[in-house]
Amino acid sequence: MHLAELQDILRRTYLDRDSGRGRDATFRWMVEEVGELSRAVRDEDPAALLHEFGDVLAWLASLATLCGVDLERAAARYATGCPRCAGVPCRCARR
Amino acid sequence: MHLAELQDILRRTYLDRDSGRGRDATFRWMVEEVGELSRAVRDEDPAALLHEFGDVLAWLASLATLCGVDLERAAARYATGCPRCAGVPCRCARR
Repeated sequence: MHLAELQDILRRTYLDRDSGRGRDATFRWMVEEVGELSRAVRDEDPAALLHEFGDVLAWLASLATLCGVDLERAAARYATGCPRCAGVPCRCARR
Repeated sequence: MHLAELQDILRRTYLDRDSGRGRDATFRWMVEEVGELSRAVRDEDPAALLHEFGDVLAWLASLATLCGVDLERAAARYATGCPRCAGVPCRCARR
C-alpha cells in the first residue's frame, strides 16, 4: 500500500471525527496506541504487534492529515537512505 | 512510496545499528521522536511537522523490522476503512 493511499483511506474514514476531536486529542489517542504497542513489544505477541503497529500507523496518518502533512512527502527524506549521509547503509552513525 | 519500500530502505540503512541497540532502546528512540512531533504540533511549524512525521514514521518502520512485523500487513487492517465496521466513513464511532 502506498503511504498516500493509506492516508487517504484514513482521511475518508475518520476525518469528520478527527476534526471534531482536534489535533491535541488526536495526538493523545496516538500516544495511547504507542502505549499499547509498548505492551505488545514487551509481550512479544506477534498478533498484538501486528495489530498495534497498524493502529499507531493509522493514528499517525490521521494526525498528519489534521496537521496538513503529506506522509509521502514526510517519508521522502528517507527515500535514498540516511537523510544525513545519504548512505545505505548509513555511515554517519548519527542515528 | 509503498510501505514495504519504506520499511526495506530503513532496514538496509539502519538494521545493523538498530539490532545492536535492541527493541527497547529503539522503542525509546521512537518515543523521543514522538516528543519532537508533539513540539512541532504545538508550534504549528510546517517544516518541523514534515520533518518529525517523517522521523516518527522511520523509527516506527525500524522498530517493526526488529519486531518481525511487516508494515504492509499491519496497515492492511485499514485497507477497506474502519476495521470494526468496514465503513468509509466509519459508522461505528468506536474510534
